Amino acid sequence: MASQFGERLRVSIYGESHGNGIGALIEGFPAGEHIDFDRLMRFMERRQGGRNALSTARKEPDVPEFVSGVFEDKTTGFPVCIRIANTNTRSGDYSNLALKPRPSHADYSAYMKWHGHADMRGGGHFSGRLTAPVCAAGGIAIQMLERRGIYVGAHLSSVGAARDDAFPMQPDPALFENIAAKSFPVISDEKGEQMQQEILAAREALDSVGGSIECMVTGLPAGLGDPMFDGIENRLARVLFGIPAVKGVEFGDGFALSEMRGSAANDPFGTDAQGNIITKTNRNGGILGGITTGMPVRFRVGIKPTPSIAQEQETVSLPDGTDTTIEIKGRHDPCIAQRAVPVIEAAAALTVLDVLLCDASQ
Amino acid sequence: MASQFGERLRVSIYGESHGNGIGALIEGFPAGEHIDFDRLMRFMERRQGGRNALSTARKEPDVPEFVSGVFEDKTTGFPVCIRIANTNTRSGDYSNLALKPRPSHADYSAYMKWHGHADMRGGGHFSGRLTAPVCAAGGIAIQMLERRGIYVGAHLSSVGAARDDAFPMQPDPALFENIAAKSFPVISDEKGEQMQQEILAAREALDSVGGSIECMVTGLPAGLGDPMFDGIENRLARVLFGIPAVKGVEFGDGFALSEMRGSAANDPFGTDAQGNIITKTNRNGGILGGITTGMPVRFRVGIKPTPSIAQEQETVSLPDGTDTTIEIKGRHDPCIAQRAVPVIEAAAALTVLDVLLCDASQ
Amino acid sequence: MASQFGERLRVSIYGESHGNGIGALIEGFPAGEHIDFDRLMRFMERRQGGRNALSTARKEPDVPEFVSGVFEDKTTGFPVCIRIANTNTRSGDYSNLALKPRPSHADYSAYMKWHGHADMRGGGHFSGRLTAPVCAAGGIAIQMLERRGIYVGAHLSSVGAARDDAFPMQPDPALFENIAAKSFPVISDEKGEQMQQEILAAREALDSVGGSIECMVTGLPAGLGDPMFDGIENRLARVLFGIPAVKGVEFGDGFALSEMRGSAANDPFGTDAQGNIITKTNRNGGILGGITTGMPVRFRVGIKPTPSIAQEQETVSLPDGTDTTIEIKGRHDPCIAQRAVPVIEAAAALTVLDVLLCDASQ
Amino acid sequence: MASQFGERLRVSIYGESHGNGIGALIEGFPAGEHIDFDRLMRFMERRQGGRNALSTARKEPDVPEFVSGVFEDKTTGFPVCIRIANTNTRSGDYSNLALKPRPSHADYSAYMKWHGHADMRGGGHFSGRLTAPVCAAGGIAIQMLERRGIYVGAHLSSVGAARDDAFPMQPDPALFENIAAKSFPVISDEKGEQMQQEILAAREALDSVGGSIECMVTGLPAGLGDPMFDGIENRLARVLFGIPAVKGVEFGDGFALSEMRGSAANDPFGTDAQGNIITKTNRNGGILGGITTGMPVRFRVGIKPTPSIAQEQETVSLPDGTDTTIEIKGRHDPCIAQRAVPVIEAAAALTVLDVLLCDASQ
Repeated sequence: MASQFGERLRVSIYGESHGNGIGALIEGFPAGEHIDFDRLMRFMERRQGGRNALSTARKEPDVPEFVSGVFEDKTTGFPVCIRIANTNTRSGDYSNLALKPRPSHADYSAYMKWHGHADMRGGGHFSGRLTAPVCAAGGIAIQMLERRGIYVGAHLSSVGAARDDAFPMQPDPALFENIAAKSFPVISDEKGEQMQQEILAAREALDSVGGSIECMVTGLPAGLGDPMFDGIENRLARVLFGIPAVKGVEFGDGFALSEMRGSAANDPFGTDAQGNIITKTNRNGGILGGITTGMPVRFRVGIKPTPSIAQEQETVSLPDGTDTTIEIKGRHDPCIAQRAVPVIEAAAALTVLDVLLCDASQ
Repeated sequence: MASQFGERLRVSIYGESHGNGIGALIEGFPAGEHIDFDRLMRFMERRQGGRNALSTARKEPDVPEFVSGVFEDKTTGFPVCIRIANTNTRSGDYSNLALKPRPSHADYSAYMKWHGHADMRGGGHFSGRLTAPVCAAGGIAIQMLERRGIYVGAHLSSVGAARDDAFPMQPDPALFENIAAKSFPVISDEKGEQMQQEILAAREALDSVGGSIECMVTGLPAGLGDPMFDGIENRLARVLFGIPAVKGVEFGDGFALSEMRGSAANDPFGTDAQGNIITKTNRNGGILGGITTGMPVRFRVGIKPTPSIAQEQETVSLPDGTDTTIEIKGRHDPCIAQRAVPVIEAAAALTVLDVLLCDASQ
Repeated sequence: MASQFGERLRVSIYGESHGNGIGALIEGFPAGEHIDFDRLMRFMERRQGGRNALSTARKEPDVPEFVSGVFEDKTTGFPVCIRIANTNTRSGDYSNLALKPRPSHADYSAYMKWHGHADMRGGGHFSGRLTAPVCAAGGIAIQMLERRGIYVGAHLSSVGAARDDAFPMQPDPALFENIAAKSFPVISDEKGEQMQQEILAAREALDSVGGSIECMVTGLPAGLGDPMFDGIENRLARVLFGIPAVKGVEFGDGFALSEMRGSAANDPFGTDAQGNIITKTNRNGGILGGITTGMPVRFRVGIKPTPSIAQEQETVSLPDGTDTTIEIKGRHDPCIAQRAVPVIEAAAALTVLDVLLCDASQ
Repeated sequence: MASQFGERLRVSIYGESHGNGIGALIEGFPAGEHIDFDRLMRFMERRQGGRNALSTARKEPDVPEFVSGVFEDKTTGFPVCIRIANTNTRSGDYSNLALKPRPSHADYSAYMKWHGHADMRGGGHFSGRLTAPVCAAGGIAIQMLERRGIYVGAHLSSVGAARDDAFPMQPDPALFENIAAKSFPVISDEKGEQMQQEILAAREALDSVGGSIECMVTGLPAGLGDPMFDGIENRLARVLFGIPAVKGVEFGDGFALSEMRGSAANDPFGTDAQGNIITKTNRNGGILGGITTGMPVRFRVGIKPTPSIAQEQETVSLPDGTDTTIEIKGRHDPCIAQRAVPVIEAAAALTVLDVLLCDASQ
């Protein structure tokens, strides 16, 4: 099934960009967990556009309504249905796109799959807007994880050729909070300045630019996850590739490991000052054989440039299959990677909480 | 569930490296499909070691026995149980490892998860040997796909710093066959020579080295797959990260897209000489919104160096949690990436066949 | 997961009786299918109370809002989110029940499972009201099935000791329509009169009464379904036991077969006037080995009496575990079986449509 | 998927009656659980034929080989693959059946589904022989449940018109053991004598006869299971209808409840001598809203007569669709219900253990 993930914590995403609403149905949240709605709203605001020159002008409140599963600010143990209204749609902007597929968008592949029945206004179910319910669900998971001593944080690690600093090996929750509070979610504000310049330069050139995000989860015990196809890596990857524009996922040093020798890539075991078993490096990203080592889980995702650019592009006319061109109008972010940062955190939190719930049965 | 993947074609892997046997249970193969067992054996031999100085000396015949689901050389439509005997195990080599976890192996995380109950002799269920049943199942899927005009091929795209040529945009099935017939599965034998030098140099240094694999699937129609969490990317990634030592997966140009501008990253639509709709480049790897575009699906996986190296390494003694060292004996490949090539093909074939079966219902 | 069923057509039910709303999220409806909303409303009205002395006085419009997945009156192929508002709740009626579990309700088992966190006002997620979204989803499935020549019908086959006639072996769709149009859904109005007398007598005695429902699905081809645990019987049973108060499910002659000899129970094969292969009797309910025979699928469900009765009943006080009594006030049907008739049809339609979609891949 | 059930404890059954072997693959058994193989063998012997005049003459040792997942007599936490050899097959007996479907067998429906590709020798995957691996897996689950204070027992409650006594409301584990040790598994040996007469009379008439089984699970805590579609009832029913010849399942008083009034059907709450909350009757079979009440779970299954009878029966010739007759030779039980008793226990144990594992995450 396309729009669902998770085993004991099952998240289903629904809705279209310009339809009646979007939302999530979550089954499996533990019962009796308090939800801090103010904090959830602040988390969701991090993914919204319109705050500065870097983002689209579309502003929607994105207030999640809890239709079910929450009573007196606590989860009840029953399915939680979240609904977010669509209030600020301008379908006219997209009207000419239906029969001229936009390059690197899902217009053509969706047309071929659903034979024209898909409601593709504003990108339909493929719209980045569908990450709002992912954040609503994930923002709740983050609160539940913190109650268990587990913290999730991410930062924009690159935009085009500009790079942020990397996370330290054992980041403090305060660092995560610090980044989350920034309007541009980076570790080094100086490097962040260069990254913003990349975005503004792309915008000026009627173009867009890609980026990457580094994410970490701290506080996980060793021995979490399953071997083979349900390891932490497998589950995270399945969800992360569901976030629009993600084209690469790597754990620890990832692809760089493929260029190393074993003596440099292996993480030696040792003990810390308190006598806990640790690895002295964490090039495997806290996961061996799909299962946590007790070191922080660390991964990186690569995000392609916003496909919608104002330049004229080559395409075809679908009814007659002839070559033509397209100029995309409407509101588009020159870079979506910075807005994806909380979405990656949300996806990580939902996946990790699911693994925790699954492992409780073992 | 750890050892299972697939929705309409469900593959379960079982067994431990030094137990009674290993195998796969596959539910969902279409009925009445002929299996060419000779061809299957040749496919499986590609992942086996012992053929040259690059691989481990362990040689096992790895002949799959079909316990069920096949009658008169055809699938019956019922669960296919495949069993491969374990005949050449030397557990003694591993006996001292139980309480000294090998760096970058799953020993420690497995110990913490199963509290010592896991049968970790020879790596147990985490052993690379468990990819043999993946190949047995995948080798059948490859035959079924070819009957439908779909071809799967892969090559070793890098070892350490040495790189093979890349696949052309529209590779011919003959190229796949040509690579598969080589003892070192590369496109350019000249580049392959450099790659082999990397492996031999690592071996001489009592070390190992990582590598990467590029894989393509041709002949897929446009419109295949599902949006969000069940796209081709999500499903492939979930399975690929189940192959031991895979630490990164990227589609099309993957992480390189995150450094590009949209004008360079977008694939323009156009028509070919026969009037078919194509993209003029394929930087998105044949997938948009999780769904095929009709262009070949293309992805790359990064594989870390063999964790077992002959050098002394730092570790801890599990009973008392004190620092110690380990020297790993036994038979180990200095590079496992070249043997993983058919495993990646098998994983891709099983995933694509599952998507085809799922999409038949839409 | 509790509130979800189906494999290729996945139906999730959400909401609580006295919460913000109830509904269903359905993934897997084929794309491009027209929905006749008037007809759907008529179908849903069949399960609503308040029409006569036999039912509760609670009247709610139960108008399903389609939040997603439907565009210009057609399915889009994306998740369909249905929402029904809760407008007519009187929680006060239930306020004293929280700590005195009502006999044969889920109050006590839910209290023990969720430790008091469940929102049990009005029965919460266990309320019969949750069958409204099942009908909304099922009413759409019924329309899709009819387009494929498949018809679903049911009637109230017994109330207490009073029994309706049985369905003929090959009922016409007109018979199903005829029953559906009646305010009391029986085949024989004369027998129906006796059944209504049973209900009124129970009501007069401040009591309730159980009943049973016979359901049939016609027009199914032979060869549909799967062996062992995913046969038509397994799938139907799993869903049917999800309908509140269902305590028994039998296929064909069901339990009566256990009292027969094989010579009387076996259905002889033969041919009809058109040369089609049929069985001359249909004691197996159109299913052999879990797979359709081409004869109509036939099953019966047993429904226990409404647990809420106005008589004083023995219970315990949960905080202190002492014996006490309870008198249940509020609006309660003396028999819920007649209102369950369309719910059974909806459950059957959703299950059969799912099987059809699954089998398309074989 | 047809041959798999369970969520956290996933059981897959494979094999055909006259193929290379049959077995089960079980994922999710907790790690470190000792298996008493002698006891497992005794459990499996209960379902085997050939012990007396009531059963078929086919005798096979049915010794389960543990291919994986068990090390030093303990579960390892990895998939357990069980294999049972097929040693005593006489396919000749069935050779003439292929094109003349046997009434009330799956021959015809399987032929229509797999278009002749199914290996139906000896009933293939539909054979009662496939219940041997269910017992092998279930026999292990029973041992694990007992370690948790949970006991499963069943008896043959009727054969034709002859009836055994019913279980008491709170049966002692000793009663279960006592029945299990009998060659004819009933509570009252006197009633059992009548039941055996029914079987022998059917056999003498070249006929067969059906029966029913009552099963109970004691020691379950209150609050186990899930609402709606994953209640204890839903899960048990899905598995039970996977046992060949089961045509009806009811919980507690089941269909009899549909003939009662609420005042008679409701189970009053009260306290026992130790102050525990109980229900004073258990007409709901220990389940309310799908969730355990703490009272024993109780259900009954109806089993149709063995379809294979020696009398001439009407059928059709599949190639040309003409009416013909069939006389079934070979070894057939005049009643299969008594051999199904441990199979029902196995199915119940596997389902209950799965529910326990699932609920650990809540």
